[in-house]
Amino acid sequence: MSSNTYYSSEAHGPFDLYDVGNLALEEGGTLRGCQLAVATFGTLNAAKSNAILVPTWYSGTSKIMENVYIGKGRALDPDKYFIMVVNQIGSGLGSSPHNTPFPSDRANFPKVRIGDDVRAQHQLVTQKYGIERLALVVGGSMGAQQTYEWAVRYPEMVERAAPIAGTAKNTAHDFLFTETLVDAITSDPGFANGWYEHADEVRAGLRRHAKMWAVMGWSTEFFAQGRMAALGFSSLDDFVTNFMNGYFAPMDPNNLLCMAWKWQRGDVSRHTGGDLAAALARIQAKTFVMPVSSDMFFPPSDCAREQKLIKGSELRVLDSVDGHLALFGADPDCTGQLDRHLKDLLGIAVGGRHSSM
Amino acid sequence: MSSNTYYSSEAHGPFDLYDVGNLALEEGGTLRGCQLAVATFGTLNAAKSNAILVPTWYSGTSKIMENVYIGKGRALDPDKYFIMVVNQIGSGLGSSPHNTPFPSDRANFPKVRIGDDVRAQHQLVTQKYGIERLALVVGGSMGAQQTYEWAVRYPEMVERAAPIAGTAKNTAHDFLFTETLVDAITSDPGFANGWYEHADEVRAGLRRHAKMWAVMGWSTEFFAQGRMAALGFSSLDDFVTNFMNGYFAPMDPNNLLCMAWKWQRGDVSRHTGGDLAAALARIQAKTFVMPVSSDMFFPPSDCAREQKLIKGSELRVLDSVDGHLALFGADPDCTGQLDRHLKDLLGIAVGGRHSSM
Repeated sequence: MSSNTYYSSEAHGPFDLYDVGNLALEEGGTLRGCQLAVATFGTLNAAKSNAILVPTWYSGTSKIMENVYIGKGRALDPDKYFIMVVNQIGSGLGSSPHNTPFPSDRANFPKVRIGDDVRAQHQLVTQKYGIERLALVVGGSMGAQQTYEWAVRYPEMVERAAPIAGTAKNTAHDFLFTETLVDAITSDPGFANGWYEHADEVRAGLRRHAKMWAVMGWSTEFFAQGRMAALGFSSLDDFVTNFMNGYFAPMDPNNLLCMAWKWQRGDVSRHTGGDLAAALARIQAKTFVMPVSSDMFFPPSDCAREQKLIKGSELRVLDSVDGHLALFGADPDCTGQLDRHLKDLLGIAVGGRHSSM
Repeated sequence: MSSNTYYSSEAHGPFDLYDVGNLALEEGGTLRGCQLAVATFGTLNAAKSNAILVPTWYSGTSKIMENVYIGKGRALDPDKYFIMVVNQIGSGLGSSPHNTPFPSDRANFPKVRIGDDVRAQHQLVTQKYGIERLALVVGGSMGAQQTYEWAVRYPEMVERAAPIAGTAKNTAHDFLFTETLVDAITSDPGFANGWYEHADEVRAGLRRHAKMWAVMGWSTEFFAQGRMAALGFSSLDDFVTNFMNGYFAPMDPNNLLCMAWKWQRGDVSRHTGGDLAAALARIQAKTFVMPVSSDMFFPPSDCAREQKLIKGSELRVLDSVDGHLALFGADPDCTGQLDRHLKDLLGIAVGGRHSSM
């Protein structure tokens, strides 16, 4: 274990730890004493028909989902729904390289796949809460990968699915981009093959990683339209140092690498021998595929190809110049569009059932 | 000086060295004994009215311009035009960090700006060849930066201008991307602040730099449409190792950094106190602005904003999924489009003069 005060309920709000037990991993190996960190909002109704699952994205935790997406009057309204935000393995809340004890700590933390997260989440949902159907699974980026995995792996359980700014099968281009993020961290001599004592020793690599996020995470129009200044940053250096680096620097490098490895390999066609069309044909959920118009990771063209393979699905493009990081919620118009689409989706009766109480 | 057999006429074809003398630099300092490497094709006519200038891009030399753009029946036809391909300072042919003697060698090589290149080229064109008007200045990427600089600095000399896949004033987004390229190289411990003995010592950094080019240089659709396989590469790793890394690895890191610094700061509004509209209003050349539709460095949106500020100009978008690296000529349809646009441009009478003999 390495110490890191960032991953605390002081920084990320209250969460419960659910004990999954020993999680046998798809890539081989076992994550012993696996714990999922879950933050819940609202109340599960007697029929258990108002449950929404929200998996988290790379570097994100339940806190940003709460701050940006959940609230009274919003689509994800805790007055109507029981919302479980599950922090993905490696996120820093719940089992992660930085908090796993010897001998599976840090660089020895096993390789985890999206499917492992979803099986652990399935155990949480069914065994802890006794929920058999989810009114909605919704997530952005790696949260979209988990959403797709849910809809393909447990098609009868997912009534509605909303993958935002992400794909069911990661693309070669995105795999390569993520590899450059990994390289930025691992090439830092302070990384020491993952055996650094404190994240600060990897400060330079984390800053390079943050800078690459600044290039690919937003969009050319974000910069051209002066969004950087609108968000309160007076220069590129100010933006990189105080926004992007300020965001990533407190995080644990091995945690980020755990998530990056998983992100690169997200692929629901693992269920069907590599046949993506067959995998997506399994989906029973009413699905809204929601790319961001200017996303440089998961452009609408890549998402639309997948959407066409999902029965009864709709492509709902979120119009924003904030690129992939429109997920951060800094473009309120985009967040408004997202809310309207999610309300539409939740308003659709599925299998004779409405989503709310 | 450091040895590097890559920068030879064996690899890059014959070129002449023109002695500029001592070039006082815009950033301060002097490049002593500055030499420009120029490869020419065709014959200057008696009226000296058929001269075309082609400045080079980041990492490119006169060889790729010859191979991809110049030929009988092409727009740049040596049977009709006298074509001067001038290798930019830092390209490795002509004055560059790797071949400049002590004490201005390697990390001590002075900072050069686009304007310095263009002033040196002006001396070559006027003093060596006695040319007073250029029928066309055309270049891609950093070649576009030099093209804009020519058209703004010497408006009466440039009859036609064709900046391809580049901007007159570099954007914040592109500055930041280029900085990540710089970081990839300078973060390699083998770089040793620029005092490595041989480029091989910076092998890891050059590979990271090549991988980042693979991400941003092409486009998401390039990968989605299987262009990588169509070009003969069987996997991402094969592509990165044998195409991108194979291309960049023989180059000198200090040379690349010299060009990157210049690229980041390309800006014709330096002539007009930062007023880009005023700078572009100086242009007298008939100008075709030619972005590539899928370019992630210089997207059509950024180029179109500048084009609107140039009197009588036209926006001619090159349609290709090859992104910025459509410049490499691997998409023959795109190269065909470019040729047609350049023929259109050369066919337009300017100031009562036609471009050909």
